[in-house]
Amino acid sequence: MPLQVAVCGPRHCTEDDKSHAYEVGILLAQAGAIVICGGGTGVMAAVAAGVRAGNGLVIGVRPGNTAADASPDLSAVIVTNLGEARNAIIVWSADAVIAIGGSWGTLSEIALAKRRGDVPVITLGSWIILDRDGNPLPESVTVASSPRQAVDLALAVRQVRHQETI
Amino acid sequence: MPLQVAVCGPRHCTEDDKSHAYEVGILLAQAGAIVICGGGTGVMAAVAAGVRAGNGLVIGVRPGNTAADASPDLSAVIVTNLGEARNAIIVWSADAVIAIGGSWGTLSEIALAKRRGDVPVITLGSWIILDRDGNPLPESVTVASSPRQAVDLALAVRQVRHQETI
Amino acid sequence: MPLQVAVCGPRHCTEDDKSHAYEVGILLAQAGAIVICGGGTGVMAAVAAGVRAGNGLVIGVRPGNTAADASPDLSAVIVTNLGEARNAIIVWSADAVIAIGGSWGTLSEIALAKRRGDVPVITLGSWIILDRDGNPLPESVTVASSPRQAVDLALAVRQVRHQETI
Amino acid sequence: MPLQVAVCGPRHCTEDDKSHAYEVGILLAQAGAIVICGGGTGVMAAVAAGVRAGNGLVIGVRPGNTAADASPDLSAVIVTNLGEARNAIIVWSADAVIAIGGSWGTLSEIALAKRRGDVPVITLGSWIILDRDGNPLPESVTVASSPRQAVDLALAVRQVRHQETI
Repeated sequence: MPLQVAVCGPRHCTEDDKSHAYEVGILLAQAGAIVICGGGTGVMAAVAAGVRAGNGLVIGVRPGNTAADASPDLSAVIVTNLGEARNAIIVWSADAVIAIGGSWGTLSEIALAKRRGDVPVITLGSWIILDRDGNPLPESVTVASSPRQAVDLALAVRQVRHQETI
Repeated sequence: MPLQVAVCGPRHCTEDDKSHAYEVGILLAQAGAIVICGGGTGVMAAVAAGVRAGNGLVIGVRPGNTAADASPDLSAVIVTNLGEARNAIIVWSADAVIAIGGSWGTLSEIALAKRRGDVPVITLGSWIILDRDGNPLPESVTVASSPRQAVDLALAVRQVRHQETI
Repeated sequence: MPLQVAVCGPRHCTEDDKSHAYEVGILLAQAGAIVICGGGTGVMAAVAAGVRAGNGLVIGVRPGNTAADASPDLSAVIVTNLGEARNAIIVWSADAVIAIGGSWGTLSEIALAKRRGDVPVITLGSWIILDRDGNPLPESVTVASSPRQAVDLALAVRQVRHQETI
Repeated sequence: MPLQVAVCGPRHCTEDDKSHAYEVGILLAQAGAIVICGGGTGVMAAVAAGVRAGNGLVIGVRPGNTAADASPDLSAVIVTNLGEARNAIIVWSADAVIAIGGSWGTLSEIALAKRRGDVPVITLGSWIILDRDGNPLPESVTVASSPRQAVDLALAVRQVRHQETI
């Protein structure tokens, strides 16, 4: 089974977020990874467009009860009708999580992925989380500085898996 | 976006159910439909194998918290960690639902699909539902007698959709 | 912890269903059981009213994203925003399930409860489920003929539990 | 219907978090509010014990498939079998959210509550969230400095509601 990478990010995002998401989508598709995203607008639409441009497979996991508002670049649509609880599904379906840009929904996906615990979480231009005293958390997310670095960090999971099976 | 058809059925099924599911999978793949299934064993594995044989796209929606026990013939795996509540997702993601064989899980998918209401539900060798007086329900499922008929009834949704957009 | 009994049933139901649900609610409250229901109209509202009349505790598990449309007789409201996937929660929260009246949503709750397997399912005027050959299922639901009998069958779980702890 | 307040916090927490949660539980119970919590150990158990001491109603929303590991101080248990997706239910069931202490699960509840948007989110000794440039977010959570202040901020929702109905 190919690697599955979740790419999370806001509906309302910056132009930088969009171009980052598009590039992440192309790179993941070229690496043969399947992309799981929220299937909406903003970062979600940009990563779907990137995956399509890279001839990859991208699945959108929608919160509502219809596929009518899903990004047209998706390969398939999962209609959950679960509202924001669908964020947990995106996170649990992933071998690695990349969060691009900041929003409350995106933060919930980062937090759920860290709560799950056994999956790398990479951020690119996302929000910063500190402990109650304002100090960095000892085991937090990995901050990437470029789409290429974010994708490389996500794909590094493969190496870990390969070693586990030897 | 291609048509998405859910194919539901038991883990523990008859040999007839398995061969029906396999044939339904091939026929849906050949028709260009995406198949959504539970991603496990029995009918779920057989339809996935059929879709793969037909070079189609099949997505498994798993109830547990890992893809480790998913059918190897799936194109992608959605790991919901929602238990049997995942049955609602399979049903909501579909333009048509085909149920092959009988089990309580399968019956819950039939019932959820009828509850949703705007999607055809076709059964092939599944359980029979009667009203409290033992009479047939006025608006119940459509009973198919062969994989080909089940697929044709599911694909008929396309025609409906085409007419709606004219 | 007191026994928790789920009482399921349609929004649109008969007058008999309503009076049955009301009586079931009173009897469960008087027996000290907590009632879990869907929190809406029809059977759901009638059982909530019965529990309130019996000075019991009744929790409504709503499918939408607001408590605004919940029955006024509920002790507390769980707002799931999960759509019909909330039916699984009602079923998993129960030590016994009583289904009054017939509908696709109610059938999904019966099926999910039987799929779970370790909980008695009692029906009162609900739909009838047969295998693919039209024969009764070997291990199906227990059909009650009165509210009193339905409640007695549900409360019998206590005896089982008591024996398990000896 | 009484006000429903969610109290969120980690399984593994500080002694301060526990005593804060216990006091918040007592105060909410004395004010007549229903408390919704995760129903487990740590902050969840402490708030449940506080509500019980204050003769209030507290409902635990569990992630697993059994009530066996639920806090004994709960008035009722909702068994979701949804894993961490249950965090969304806690948040959607609340008129106000109080987060005590810091963890990834708690952060997911804060984020989901802010994503919902129409509910006040109050933190007491929880994690700090900054935007991508390290600046405070313009519309973030309200930081309380004591259990009493946290409860007063949560109960202030009543005033808003009262004004809305005039």
